[in-house]
Amino acid sequence: MIGKFLGFLLLLECLFLLPPALISAMDGEGRALRAIFTTMAISAVVGGALSLGCRNAQRSFYAREGFLIVALGWIVLSMVGALPFWLSQEIPHYVDAVFEVISGFTTTGASILTNVEAMSRGLLFWRSFTHWLGGMGILVFLLAVVPTGKGGYSVHLLRAESPGPSVGKLVPKIRQTAAILYLIYVALTVLCVAFLLAGGMSLFDSLCTAFGTAGTGGFGVKNDSMASYSPYLQSVCTVFMALFGVNFSIYFLVLLGKFKQVLHSEELGVYLAILLGSMAVITVNILPLYSGSIGAAFHDAAFTVSSIMTTTGFATADFNLWPQLSRSILVVLMVVGACAGSTGGGIKCARLVLLYKSLVARIRQTLRPRSVNLVRAEGHTVPDEVLQGVSTYMSAYSAIAVVSFLILSLDNFSLETNLTAVLACLNNIGPGLDMVGPTSNYSLFSDLSKIVLMLNMLLGRLEIFPILIMLSPRTWRKAN
Amino acid sequence: MIGKFLGFLLLLECLFLLPPALISAMDGEGRALRAIFTTMAISAVVGGALSLGCRNAQRSFYAREGFLIVALGWIVLSMVGALPFWLSQEIPHYVDAVFEVISGFTTTGASILTNVEAMSRGLLFWRSFTHWLGGMGILVFLLAVVPTGKGGYSVHLLRAESPGPSVGKLVPKIRQTAAILYLIYVALTVLCVAFLLAGGMSLFDSLCTAFGTAGTGGFGVKNDSMASYSPYLQSVCTVFMALFGVNFSIYFLVLLGKFKQVLHSEELGVYLAILLGSMAVITVNILPLYSGSIGAAFHDAAFTVSSIMTTTGFATADFNLWPQLSRSILVVLMVVGACAGSTGGGIKCARLVLLYKSLVARIRQTLRPRSVNLVRAEGHTVPDEVLQGVSTYMSAYSAIAVVSFLILSLDNFSLETNLTAVLACLNNIGPGLDMVGPTSNYSLFSDLSKIVLMLNMLLGRLEIFPILIMLSPRTWRKAN
Repeated sequence: MIGKFLGFLLLLECLFLLPPALISAMDGEGRALRAIFTTMAISAVVGGALSLGCRNAQRSFYAREGFLIVALGWIVLSMVGALPFWLSQEIPHYVDAVFEVISGFTTTGASILTNVEAMSRGLLFWRSFTHWLGGMGILVFLLAVVPTGKGGYSVHLLRAESPGPSVGKLVPKIRQTAAILYLIYVALTVLCVAFLLAGGMSLFDSLCTAFGTAGTGGFGVKNDSMASYSPYLQSVCTVFMALFGVNFSIYFLVLLGKFKQVLHSEELGVYLAILLGSMAVITVNILPLYSGSIGAAFHDAAFTVSSIMTTTGFATADFNLWPQLSRSILVVLMVVGACAGSTGGGIKCARLVLLYKSLVARIRQTLRPRSVNLVRAEGHTVPDEVLQGVSTYMSAYSAIAVVSFLILSLDNFSLETNLTAVLACLNNIGPGLDMVGPTSNYSLFSDLSKIVLMLNMLLGRLEIFPILIMLSPRTWRKAN
Repeated sequence: MIGKFLGFLLLLECLFLLPPALISAMDGEGRALRAIFTTMAISAVVGGALSLGCRNAQRSFYAREGFLIVALGWIVLSMVGALPFWLSQEIPHYVDAVFEVISGFTTTGASILTNVEAMSRGLLFWRSFTHWLGGMGILVFLLAVVPTGKGGYSVHLLRAESPGPSVGKLVPKIRQTAAILYLIYVALTVLCVAFLLAGGMSLFDSLCTAFGTAGTGGFGVKNDSMASYSPYLQSVCTVFMALFGVNFSIYFLVLLGKFKQVLHSEELGVYLAILLGSMAVITVNILPLYSGSIGAAFHDAAFTVSSIMTTTGFATADFNLWPQLSRSILVVLMVVGACAGSTGGGIKCARLVLLYKSLVARIRQTLRPRSVNLVRAEGHTVPDEVLQGVSTYMSAYSAIAVVSFLILSLDNFSLETNLTAVLACLNNIGPGLDMVGPTSNYSLFSDLSKIVLMLNMLLGRLEIFPILIMLSPRTWRKAN
């Protein structure tokens, strides 16, 4: 059963490698082209064998298998997706290549490359394309396009791969839900490309930038990220990053014309309040650096806040040099993250809303022990199960951050470097502060640290439980 | 009702000021003596008036009043307790004096003093004495010695002031429980003084050091904290700090001869495992700094781990200069803290045990949705209410840390300074890293930051809810 899905995924990846192969062929990049073709051949053969060999597997499965397929799927895809970089020797070290691709699929955008512009265009495209594929979820794509037969299992896959504390089906059928999500995603991406092209950006740059924006990933095609583009192009990104950080069900409601429900969305309100509030405070805080020009300060503040809060990670300014208050706000935004059900990472505004409401209910309960205090969100009573899920998620999140932070400390870099590197990877942002700031990269870490950070990226993107379940000995004991 | 208790507390404080007055009188410290006497007079008059005026108040009250009395009591005690420092002009700025006394009562040990040795001995004694009083809880003392009539209210006071997720009564009567706790506390303190005297320390130094150790506070009487004392004296402190970090009900069990229950205490096991494990890792990590001498490295590692994990804050070595791994471990220990029901601060091992168990139960539940997964600790099933309490506590804790961190960032010091200052105060430790490291102090912060840090100390010591309830507008609206 698991083999069958992995086989499908590899065949899909073979398909996804076609566009970069095309670009390499057009640009006459022989070494990159050969590397991509080899990878396509490997994934086609292995994928075909797996899906044929497991043709007659059982058809229905439960939550555990759903989590396992997602976790293993992402790891296999990344290990195969790294091959072109390694085979072409554009990234000579295989661990580095896997780091780069995991960073791509998880839409983190943390890079070990020091000179992006020296890469072949085919592989640069593949690198950005992984953001777009990972943003909405590769298995969600599988659900949307591949007929997988009947059985109630697909919701387990959607649940394991989708960000946020609870998955709402937009329409009764899971496959249609997945398809609607992907349609919205494609439409917004096309819109973004159009706006970028209108600003005079080349088609190649527009596509790559739109992929990085849509997946809230942050891989760029220039060494200085977005700094050398025109203010118009930067502003387009500011707006689209913020748009991709919104829960996609909001767009579905907009399409249905249910504007009243949109206006009453608490998560959207909190998201916009934090986004705009942070922009305002940082603008005032960095004003002296821009010799008092409010316009210029706001331009960079808005771009940076939008980039960090949606966990994209593009940069126009070196915020590592900003005053401490702005830096601290950015660190907090790293943890807060975007909305649930968006392509962004972080803890998600929806969880914060639930945590805050639980806290208020708890204080009321203490003051009046006999009163009944239910937590309500978005007009519904939140079941205890979801609340417990959120707090368990937070415990797991904290524990993972602490352990990763300790292991990274073995490298003897500064506390700020280690802490923000863990937060930037766990929340799928990309750049942190100090030695992993926007003008630096992750190449200086040891292999051990890189592996820990890769796990963090996967844990962050898949929202912890699939990976924890994969790593739990209990799972394997009973699965066999 | 609240007024009556505050009156009692002020009368008590007048009494507690006698020993420092005596010392100042013997040493002929005129200015300090006058300041102490003035304070005693003020607290006696105001306290007497309050307790007489509110003599006929209603006798029974509920959780809300319990929390309020504790929160207000601690603030009033600190504001009055700061008067001697300010009146004698040994701390010329009143905000600084309150900071120092709150730091004392909450057993934090964060100081704004740059030259401790220049203080008068009377006030130095008072400063350390606040640690001892705050360690076990001033209201618990009140419960233990003052007959407060019948009524089930005293458990609310004990609950509001005692550290840990759940208060177990050792014996059915709350007053006896309080008395037993205090007896154990006094006995251990006397033992500590005896061991220090045996090592040739002066009586004054022994008393002050024992107060700082027993309350896990950390105010010392020397500018270099414990660095200039003999290795024997330092080792005595290492052992006693660790002892005062243990849940006091363990000692009660020992007194009753129930050794089997002691051996089965999960919290004790976790506490000792973290304590010894951290000592071992740090010893290896700092070995190069001690030119390979395991003995010397272990001596300092053990002292520092014991001091930080129990949230005492004494220092023998400048751990700010240690390698990053050791520094990171210390930051994590700051947050972990000691056992519930000890005089130490932090999140407490008991809460961590519960969080870990909730997490495991949650993963099991995900894998087998129909199974029943109860969380058991110390041989009993933990009620959902307690688990929810722990997770709400963690949310509140994180929110407070984040907000305080942002406000401190206004001072534009390093991220490490701001972060560890907040953690050191919220967890009642004292020293942090960088500019608040063991050889520095808190005098450089702005008044706003100092007030935020004071609130952090109170929130940490009283475990958040009393202060939150005091600050909630809802409380005041209905109380009047």
